[in-house]
Parts: sequence; structure tokens; C-alpha cells
Amino acid sequence: MKLPESTAWVLHATTSLAQLGPGGTASAAQLAEHYDLPAAYLSKQLQALVRAGVLSAVTGPRGGFRLARPADQITMLQVVEAVDGGSSFYTCNEIRQRGRAAARPENCREACGLAAKMAVAETAWRQSLAAVTIADIVASLPSGVPERTRELLARPR
Amino acid sequence: MKLPESTAWVLHATTSLAQLGPGGTASAAQLAEHYDLPAAYLSKQLQALVRAGVLSAVTGPRGGFRLARPADQITMLQVVEAVDGGSSFYTCNEIRQRGRAAARPENCREACGLAAKMAVAETAWRQSLAAVTIADIVASLPSGVPERTRELLARPR
Repeated sequence: MKLPESTAWVLHATTSLAQLGPGGTASAAQLAEHYDLPAAYLSKQLQALVRAGVLSAVTGPRGGFRLARPADQITMLQVVEAVDGGSSFYTCNEIRQRGRAAARPENCREACGLAAKMAVAETAWRQSLAAVTIADIVASLPSGVPERTRELLARPR
Repeated sequence: MKLPESTAWVLHATTSLAQLGPGGTASAAQLAEHYDLPAAYLSKQLQALVRAGVLSAVTGPRGGFRLARPADQITMLQVVEAVDGGSSFYTCNEIRQRGRAAARPENCREACGLAAKMAVAETAWRQSLAAVTIADIVASLPSGVPERTRELLARPR
């Protein structure tokens, strides 16, 4: 079970945009060059973040992407789910109701115990990522990193 | 991000074997018929459980599979990892060290904060599944189910 490789890209791109301060904007091409990533595919992933309400697309000659809300209101879970979707890791096809062993309907009123425990584990994963904001990540960066990010992504005025 | 469909199969098959009591054995064909699953593919997955030390393969005319240790010493995590492997969901390719933004080595002595938080979440998922044994699942089954499983999987003596 693997998250898409682009998960790391969008987490880093969102963290970079957060370092630009309120309204700070960078284009997909800038962010791709920033991390040496394929620009067209990164752009597609950034558009998924726009659809998820994490980023806003800014049009015009100085257009690009910026955070759609303050970094302390964007969780890692929202960024991850923007590219991976929010669907369950585990698929329960109710095999307890199939084959020779098919359980009686009166024994299937409650969720399958296996599926229930898989759901508990998945909730633990999601809650852990929902508890961390992009602002927390920026706050944990070594000193000097945000200043350098701003400098590297600055655009001529 | 999805676990293989066979995750549910092996969780159910292991739970069925646990209901047979100590040393209880069933063949891949029996378990496949029990749940209406493709026998050849189920057999391959059961062999992965043998390699992981969850099941033992029993040879001979009454051969098949049995638990390799008591059900209260087999966790859901061990069964899941037998088919999915234990590798990380999230791949950190250290993109912070790539491109124009490449961080200085002195700023990369600690793990990337994003990768660290992804690892915390994954540990929460694994710990949740490691806390549930197959014996716990059997104990949660509706009354009458283990008796019925034993009856259906019994072999002529």
C-alpha cells in the first residue's frame, strides 16, 4: 500500500507557499524548478489541491497558486486526501456472507469485526494527520529556511 | 491508497482456522469454497502467511493450513503485513535537497518534518492493528458462529 509519489510533492509545495506569507503566490513552473519536479504533472496535482480548497489559482501575468486559507487552517490530511482521495484503505466485500460459510442475516446486523478494527486503525492514521497543520511544519523548519524560500521564489516586481 | 483485496480473504481465513481450535487444519480448497474465493489465488496468499510465520502448511492427505501459534499471539497487523508487506505508505525522496531549493546539508541532519509526521501517522495505524489479536476477533463473533465454522470445515475421519 503506497501513497502516490506526488503526495510528497504537494506537501512540499504547500509548505513552500506557506513560507511566502499571506497571499504569497508562485507558479507551477517556479515550484517545479524549486524542487526539480516535472512541471506538467506537478501542475495537475496543484489543481487537485485547488479543487480540494487547499490552494487558490490566481490568474493573470503574476498568476499561479497561493494558499486558499491561512496555513494554520490547512492540515496535512487535507493535502494528502486532495491527491489520494479519502476512500478507505480496506475493502470489505462482506465475504462472511458468501460461499458455504455464508453467515445468517441475523448474525450480520453489526459490522464485520475485522472491518470494524481496520476502520479504527484507519481513523487513527487520519486523526494523526488531521492534528498537524502546514503552519506547524513551517514552524519546525530550521532557522533561515523560510527566508531562503521567500528569496528563491520571489518574483521581479 | 488501497490494501490488496486479498487482505480481507486472509483475515477471514485466519479467523476461520482459529475457530477450529488448536491444530485445526483446513485446505486452501476448503477455505476457498467456504468463502467462494478463487482457490489458486487464495492458496498463494495462504503461502505468504506461512512465510510470515502466521500459518503452518501441513502436508499429507489431511494436509492444508493451520495456525502456526495460538490465536492470541497472532495480531491483525501480522496478517495484513504478510500480504501487503511492511513498507512505508509514504515515500520521502528528500525533495528538500533537490532543485533550486536544495537545502544545505546542515539543515538536513534531522528527518524532514513532513516525513516525520507521515511516519507518526503510519505508526498509529500499525499500533492499532498490532493491538488486536485473531483471538479477540473470534471472541467478538456472534454466538453460534464458531460452532458452525467447525461443522462446515470438519473433515470426514
